[in-house]
Amino acid sequence: MSESFTFSVTGTDGTARTGEIRMPRGVIRTPAFMPVGTAATVKAMYPEQVKALGADVVLGNTYHLMLRPGAERVAALGGLHKFMNWPYPILTDSGGFQVMSLSKLRKIDESGVTFQSHVDGATHVLTPERSIEIQGLLGADIQMQLDECVKLPASPQDTERAMRLSLRWAERCRRAFGEQPGKALFGIVQGGEDRALRIESARALVDMDFKGYAIGGLAVGEPQATMLAMIETVVPYLPTTKPRYLMGVGTPDDLVAAVTRGIDMFDCVMPTRAGRHGLAYTRFGKINLKNARHADDPAPLDPTSSCPAANSYSRAYLHHLVKSGEILGMMLLTWANLAYYQDLMASLRKAIVDNTLADVSAAIRADWGAGAADAPGEADQAS
Amino acid sequence: MSESFTFSVTGTDGTARTGEIRMPRGVIRTPAFMPVGTAATVKAMYPEQVKALGADVVLGNTYHLMLRPGAERVAALGGLHKFMNWPYPILTDSGGFQVMSLSKLRKIDESGVTFQSHVDGATHVLTPERSIEIQGLLGADIQMQLDECVKLPASPQDTERAMRLSLRWAERCRRAFGEQPGKALFGIVQGGEDRALRIESARALVDMDFKGYAIGGLAVGEPQATMLAMIETVVPYLPTTKPRYLMGVGTPDDLVAAVTRGIDMFDCVMPTRAGRHGLAYTRFGKINLKNARHADDPAPLDPTSSCPAANSYSRAYLHHLVKSGEILGMMLLTWANLAYYQDLMASLRKAIVDNTLADVSAAIRADWGAGAADAPGEADQAS
Repeated sequence: MSESFTFSVTGTDGTARTGEIRMPRGVIRTPAFMPVGTAATVKAMYPEQVKALGADVVLGNTYHLMLRPGAERVAALGGLHKFMNWPYPILTDSGGFQVMSLSKLRKIDESGVTFQSHVDGATHVLTPERSIEIQGLLGADIQMQLDECVKLPASPQDTERAMRLSLRWAERCRRAFGEQPGKALFGIVQGGEDRALRIESARALVDMDFKGYAIGGLAVGEPQATMLAMIETVVPYLPTTKPRYLMGVGTPDDLVAAVTRGIDMFDCVMPTRAGRHGLAYTRFGKINLKNARHADDPAPLDPTSSCPAANSYSRAYLHHLVKSGEILGMMLLTWANLAYYQDLMASLRKAIVDNTLADVSAAIRADWGAGAADAPGEADQAS
Repeated sequence: MSESFTFSVTGTDGTARTGEIRMPRGVIRTPAFMPVGTAATVKAMYPEQVKALGADVVLGNTYHLMLRPGAERVAALGGLHKFMNWPYPILTDSGGFQVMSLSKLRKIDESGVTFQSHVDGATHVLTPERSIEIQGLLGADIQMQLDECVKLPASPQDTERAMRLSLRWAERCRRAFGEQPGKALFGIVQGGEDRALRIESARALVDMDFKGYAIGGLAVGEPQATMLAMIETVVPYLPTTKPRYLMGVGTPDDLVAAVTRGIDMFDCVMPTRAGRHGLAYTRFGKINLKNARHADDPAPLDPTSSCPAANSYSRAYLHHLVKSGEILGMMLLTWANLAYYQDLMASLRKAIVDNTLADVSAAIRADWGAGAADAPGEADQAS
């Protein structure tokens, strides 16, 4: 294992690239999809299963963990890796996004954000310095700057103000983080749907010399074309030698499109959340197991998958489990979905090495339309 | 594998015995604990895990399965074993007990019981013949006669009436089942807390020549001493050459006490249900993970267990998962509890072979009191 935090690009295909992020706790093969382990667990999965699927890194949510069980408690217990039995790399977010989406009575000022816990109503203050402190207590390998995520729709003035505040917080996080061999702090490009703001944000962050750069504030309801346009705007301003992380994305189609445009890392609750709501992501598209048409179907989700959840259980059985509210239904569908996401990333990495990304992407998209899936409309409810 | 259904006693220690029930789908090592797979799933467990713990057989509930997904549907899909990916022996109950405890608007007469589904309110009729038909459609290796389980407290007259009705239903089930090589139908001894009725029931059932005999209507709230007295009353009237099954039992202490008195088979929701409610059964007694005293405890549930759920996750982490309502908490505690139950049965089987059951039982009971557990009172809430 590497003693320091390094990123190397080992292959390119157009703007897309594949590579390795190395750090003491392991290697992240990029492009990488990071399963979300919000409260120190990738929901409904044993950690060994997550690793076996090919996930090299999981994401932990600072907001959830600071409230319960508490960062100091996790530190006293030996850190998040030990706490959740995941000895491999962990990326933590800054807490900012969930403060905005989950907490009550938020108050943002220059110093940080004051909010009430959604768990017990207690008041907490999250400053850039405290966010870095918490992520350090958790022991995260990759940490994120605190940023302000504006509520949509946002006025141009609000978007600009939040972007500039996020830049000042980036500086404070960068200072608080200092130099930590083997660990990394990433900056987050903000600026909404405004190309000029996005470019300004990217440039300023690059001047601060982060170990990696995220693009935030996307996949929050805007059309995919807008998201892709922002990626295309920002990527040329990010150093080719640093990993690029698109936060909170996305659907399988989003992943293919963003990898093609040079993104290296992703996280999203979609495969895990959908798995708890009866929805399967497969090579042949989305399948809504709640649909009565599966009640007598002996076919598995995908006989070509190497995941037992996808190849060894009938749709009829999965339908039964989902309709009966059985935990095993959530376990199997989460497993199958994460397997599909990891298989998808593996096939994209290979395609980049082989310089066949366009063909492979076209084949992947053709499979989605091959007809095994349910109508998109009914499936979308769980995503 | 055996082509026929056979039972052989391979060792005894006093009244206790160990042996093997052989049938085409596998061997059940007795004394055996059967995890409950109510709706075609041992809740929160992958089937491979259940087998790996040493369970040779699981129980399916006819009442649940006839209502959802339906016996004819399961048959069309290839039977319950294939449906739930459990190729090993399955025992199904008759549906009678759950009709009494879960359904609405029951009406019992000589022909059978009419009831409304708790799922959708539809009216169903369960007769002895239909119960056997359903269990056959499911493909159960061991099937149970339909019996009437009286609601407690029951008058002596009601207890006697229900016992006699159960005997008549036993005859009808016996006739409906006929001879099925490789499969077995068990009769169920009823008679409440009345020794004379219990003996009469046992004698009449033995005359009908079942492949095995269950003792029903116990562990329904009576003191353990009453249950043990009924076992001691009935066992001498059951043939030594047939397996004896104590239905719906029980706590680890119940298992030790009943094995000592000659019982070969058990089923109970306790380890699985408790696991979903934050309660662990361990070698050192019951541990209520909801208790705040575990919040900072780095110790695992039981470092001497071979189950990862018991030896590799801290009590602090389990406490966190339980408090956060995380599915992984239920998965881990169910796994640990079933591991403990299977380990307990394995140690009892070995003790019988070694003729050390009294000493081993005393050591097991001493461990329960060794102090690692929470106070019994607070833990009992989930059992």
